[in-house]
Amino acid sequence: MSGEPTSGEFAFIDWVRRQNVFDGERLPVGIGDDAAVLRPTPGRDLVIAKDVLLEGVHFTFPEATPELAGRKSLAVNLSDLAAMGARPTLAFVGLALPRKRGHAFSEQVHAGIQQLADEFDIVIAGGDTNIWDGPLVVSVTLVGDVEQGQAVRRGGAQAGDWIMVTGPLGGSLPSGRHLTFTPRVELAQQLCKSAPIHSMIDLSDGLSRDVRHLTIPFGLGAELSAVAIPIHDDVASALSPAYRLDHALHDGEDFELLFTVGPEQGRQLLATFSEFPLAHIGTVTATPTILLKLANGISRQLPVSGWEHRYERS
Amino acid sequence: MSGEPTSGEFAFIDWVRRQNVFDGERLPVGIGDDAAVLRPTPGRDLVIAKDVLLEGVHFTFPEATPELAGRKSLAVNLSDLAAMGARPTLAFVGLALPRKRGHAFSEQVHAGIQQLADEFDIVIAGGDTNIWDGPLVVSVTLVGDVEQGQAVRRGGAQAGDWIMVTGPLGGSLPSGRHLTFTPRVELAQQLCKSAPIHSMIDLSDGLSRDVRHLTIPFGLGAELSAVAIPIHDDVASALSPAYRLDHALHDGEDFELLFTVGPEQGRQLLATFSEFPLAHIGTVTATPTILLKLANGISRQLPVSGWEHRYERS
Repeated sequence: MSGEPTSGEFAFIDWVRRQNVFDGERLPVGIGDDAAVLRPTPGRDLVIAKDVLLEGVHFTFPEATPELAGRKSLAVNLSDLAAMGARPTLAFVGLALPRKRGHAFSEQVHAGIQQLADEFDIVIAGGDTNIWDGPLVVSVTLVGDVEQGQAVRRGGAQAGDWIMVTGPLGGSLPSGRHLTFTPRVELAQQLCKSAPIHSMIDLSDGLSRDVRHLTIPFGLGAELSAVAIPIHDDVASALSPAYRLDHALHDGEDFELLFTVGPEQGRQLLATFSEFPLAHIGTVTATPTILLKLANGISRQLPVSGWEHRYERS
Repeated sequence: MSGEPTSGEFAFIDWVRRQNVFDGERLPVGIGDDAAVLRPTPGRDLVIAKDVLLEGVHFTFPEATPELAGRKSLAVNLSDLAAMGARPTLAFVGLALPRKRGHAFSEQVHAGIQQLADEFDIVIAGGDTNIWDGPLVVSVTLVGDVEQGQAVRRGGAQAGDWIMVTGPLGGSLPSGRHLTFTPRVELAQQLCKSAPIHSMIDLSDGLSRDVRHLTIPFGLGAELSAVAIPIHDDVASALSPAYRLDHALHDGEDFELLFTVGPEQGRQLLATFSEFPLAHIGTVTATPTILLKLANGISRQLPVSGWEHRYERS
């Protein structure tokens, strides 16, 4: 009998390992030991995000290909690190692979992760691969870094701040954009270099919900301007303006960045980043309510209709 | 409508957050942002492990309670960090919770994780909670640290090294010990302080397989002594000695540490750690084969019968 299996789990891990050559200075130990060893860069904080993506919840087949399911699992974590203004460096990939789908499927899932990792210069430093009778599960932990003390938090908005968004919203799920979006990693770092970003979050739950995370827990609120909210082409143009706005407010999975910045800096960002679809969509207020100012000048409270997982029973 | 949900995902995350108070110096940002921010301790390397545990594979109900399923999911990662000689500090917990089991079940899973985290002084710094129609998935990423350059690797054994194990082996799965074992975190750090440990691994796949990971890829081999391998009381005493040994060699999920050390240091460790069930079970050889020396003095090649997940089709 051979001590080096040629099929199954170990072969798969070898396949991944061969694709991830790492810098022994920054990463003294990568794939192939009990754990990875990372040598932090002096003067920088580490930033760590972890999302678990599930077949039937975050992607379905055949809407998604195996590659796109893998890609999304890394992309959502890249979006989280972007929202901190961090630079991603290493990923850890945990997989529960459906036994019935076989080895080619598994390689395709990983190829989708690997391709995006390569685009963002991220090394896969470790993880865990299992085969089971359940659906596909991809659990990515993403590690990055940021200059010490410079991570951008959800808290930090000030009354009077401009509320800005990095791109148009809505229609991500039916169009499949939620599988193919580009995480705003590069743009976020440029924004952070250009101006003191007071607070930031990535738009996963929907604008109507995520704007609350930047304001309500800190005793603040927001007034959004209906006409200023950019609506994505993925929202059907045949819909009425009010319905189209609802999609932009509530659909979720846009993975654009929502951030707040002082008004003067906001104006400068619009000028500096004129080739990007940055938009000024509202203002932080001192009252903990979220208002939507309609085209006719009337403001109404904005309901929450974002996405929340719920149990069948409590 | 309220912006602060009182049930479902957000309530669960709040419940976890309240139980994890963190030191803002070492962990400037914990649960509740897009990612956690960790300030590394100068002069120390970070060590990161990630294991995904699956209902029906790594635990089953009702053999396991929800608490024990959660506990094991952290414990296996603690065992990985122990095998590097590292000190665990932070955990990230990804959960896919079965919708049909409801909220109490989810809290029990987390309580099992939290209790072990508290025992090992680990803060839960982030993660991801989902509810779905599939089985329970617990994906833990564990972060720790070690003095710079001092992580113990799988590679590093030298021909002539003693092969040692931290405790008796076998019978872990039928007895349920795989759910309740104590990860050898403390002992590993003491061993590393007492002697230069050349190589180390935790015994998850079974001694017959794991001893290969310390030797074969580095052109080395091992001769194990059948009579020296400690057999756990969980292996039925009514079995023949040969069958009992097979359980110790092949069962897996022991989560003891297997390590190699120079013979002189090995003797000293046996004396220093006399209150621990340390055992000297063999010797590293210069030939890449794994031999088992039987009581009658005859050596035979040791077959691999450890655990490996496999696909139905290739």
